[in-house]
Amino acid sequence: MGEPRFLRPISTPGADIGRAITFDAPLALDAGRELAPFTVAYMTYGVLNATRSNAVLACHALTGDQFAASSNPVTGKPGWWDTMIGPGKSIDTDRYFVICANVIGGCMGSTGPAEIDPATGTPYGLAFPLVTVRDMVRAQAMLLDALGIEKLLCVIGGSMGGMQVLQWAATYPERVVSAVPIACAARHSAQNIALHEVGRQAIMADPDWRGGAYQRDDTQPAKGLSVARMAAHITYLSEAALQRKFGRNLQNRDSVSFAFRPDFQIESYLHYQGAAFVDRFDANSYLYITRAMDYFDLAADYGGVLADAFRGTQTRFCIISFSSDWLFPTLGNKQIAHALNAAAANVSFVEIATDRGHDAFLLDEPEMFAAIRGFLTSVSSSRGIV
Amino acid sequence: MGEPRFLRPISTPGADIGRAITFDAPLALDAGRELAPFTVAYMTYGVLNATRSNAVLACHALTGDQFAASSNPVTGKPGWWDTMIGPGKSIDTDRYFVICANVIGGCMGSTGPAEIDPATGTPYGLAFPLVTVRDMVRAQAMLLDALGIEKLLCVIGGSMGGMQVLQWAATYPERVVSAVPIACAARHSAQNIALHEVGRQAIMADPDWRGGAYQRDDTQPAKGLSVARMAAHITYLSEAALQRKFGRNLQNRDSVSFAFRPDFQIESYLHYQGAAFVDRFDANSYLYITRAMDYFDLAADYGGVLADAFRGTQTRFCIISFSSDWLFPTLGNKQIAHALNAAAANVSFVEIATDRGHDAFLLDEPEMFAAIRGFLTSVSSSRGIV
Repeated sequence: MGEPRFLRPISTPGADIGRAITFDAPLALDAGRELAPFTVAYMTYGVLNATRSNAVLACHALTGDQFAASSNPVTGKPGWWDTMIGPGKSIDTDRYFVICANVIGGCMGSTGPAEIDPATGTPYGLAFPLVTVRDMVRAQAMLLDALGIEKLLCVIGGSMGGMQVLQWAATYPERVVSAVPIACAARHSAQNIALHEVGRQAIMADPDWRGGAYQRDDTQPAKGLSVARMAAHITYLSEAALQRKFGRNLQNRDSVSFAFRPDFQIESYLHYQGAAFVDRFDANSYLYITRAMDYFDLAADYGGVLADAFRGTQTRFCIISFSSDWLFPTLGNKQIAHALNAAAANVSFVEIATDRGHDAFLLDEPEMFAAIRGFLTSVSSSRGIV
Repeated sequence: MGEPRFLRPISTPGADIGRAITFDAPLALDAGRELAPFTVAYMTYGVLNATRSNAVLACHALTGDQFAASSNPVTGKPGWWDTMIGPGKSIDTDRYFVICANVIGGCMGSTGPAEIDPATGTPYGLAFPLVTVRDMVRAQAMLLDALGIEKLLCVIGGSMGGMQVLQWAATYPERVVSAVPIACAARHSAQNIALHEVGRQAIMADPDWRGGAYQRDDTQPAKGLSVARMAAHITYLSEAALQRKFGRNLQNRDSVSFAFRPDFQIESYLHYQGAAFVDRFDANSYLYITRAMDYFDLAADYGGVLADAFRGTQTRFCIISFSSDWLFPTLGNKQIAHALNAAAANVSFVEIATDRGHDAFLLDEPEMFAAIRGFLTSVSSSRGIV
């Protein structure tokens, strides 16, 4: 096994991707292939204490990245969990050492389909192996090994981040003191697989996708990726929130145009979301990461019994769902709690009343902040962390 | 005003489009333009009685057509409401004379963007004017005039068909004895506009759309239209029904492929839905009809007060919704009932418990059949129709 090399990866030209470690040791993938060498790009916030006992791993969602609590170098916007992580915040960087790593298959510095395949000297494209949520977690575990962190005080994340939390707790129970899966499920539903497939088909239907080899021609399937994002974005919100924010309001006009223009504010908003996404995300990464979510079915690795994924666990769990989340409804979150109860685990469950849909986990939700602050304080106190 | 000509339209080459009337008199459109000449293709089932009092108008949904209760000449499948309309069925063609007309803007013989523009001798494409639900209803009223039918015993339809029902009751109250809007709303929601815009963008992103002039090149935006249909199809079902029917079942394989193939049954099913739709529907019609639905906001024509659309109405209403319909949730259907109550109208409301989502109105739903049969029997008895 090779030593990890603390290097800057070749990816994401021009963008500051934070810190990165390149591993010569192979990453064994669920697909039966190995990835070597591979890079994990990450960011840290706060200071690791002397006993290395205050590390919190924040896991990002489908289109997230390692910039959880600092300005995103591509968009210039605040980190995706800037409201959650920072000095005095729920995940208090005055107390905790927070790590956030770009997932394998991503496009912000960790090895993914947009990176150069050392075997060919050209970008992987579709030659990149399919990765799973477990592969993402394995890569994170290797990162923590390299950073000398044996145990995590907490693993936390929403949506696909929550899937990683569950996978961490199942695969490395002895390394996870506490786990906070938010707005997720133990397996991807038929409806969610269907929604992902629509997005993938939109990308693959774009002639500029070019069988995944668009980088060769210095182009990208912008229209297809934009359609995929628009479709997905609707699922992150709720009907009530859309009605409250946009209703049938017209965009800079007094009456409809009787033409195929974005007459309605909701249309302009969607177009903006599509265009902004194309500027920051790689289309092939979108294919790979949605597929990783589709493949997620934690119970399947334990004979179909979800409780068996957590049998004997000492990890403390706090499960959070949102009342208006129809992508990962409360029911799916509750099923995790039921399985943990069946495994006699220490678990609390909070459903937060909000009309903001799935995206609520990224938004200013005081009840979520309070729940996480309280849970982390309790966990850290019981471990003697001040 | 010219006399209607009972002709076969030029459209839909090769397909038997049933009956058709071409009007030389112009159809005045909400867009401020006129359509002339224009054709309405339609089908009838049953026999008009001597007093012309047993006519039922069935209004079709977004992708429906006039073949409500007879084999579809394009697909060879039974009519879309074959379970509802026929001898001895809820809409009993032994008692009622049922008319179903393809909407203006459609692609099954009524004038729409795929038809020849007499001004240019080439297909309209995007030169076709935007039409509204009210325009569709105006064209149907002219059809009924030509058929010598003054009053409708009932106007009935689901989804966009339900919007037409509401428009009929508001615009021609004296012609509508009873009205059954099913699984609809008095205005299209922000979420539904958003979902439609995704479909339109998918079509328009396809280079084979060619600015709407694809017929010129004897092609069609098949990939874009297929993506639009796949996205829409998900919204016609429910998460519970998808989980029950497909779950995470694999398609002809024992384990996932770790490739971008349709591993899951739900993916194969969606691909089939997309491909089948492309074989039967015109992409520009899809743009126009979705836009007509987006523009639907019945209250807007009555100072924003929905009850004022029905003030003084003598029409009897039966409103039907489905518990798992998240595209046109029960709440939106109830709002129609509330407005009718505020207008002191005769209205009954039924929410049918089913997990089949919006599509339930097209499916074998005994409770819906019973409600409609009972309502129509009561209405026809009170009119002395045996």
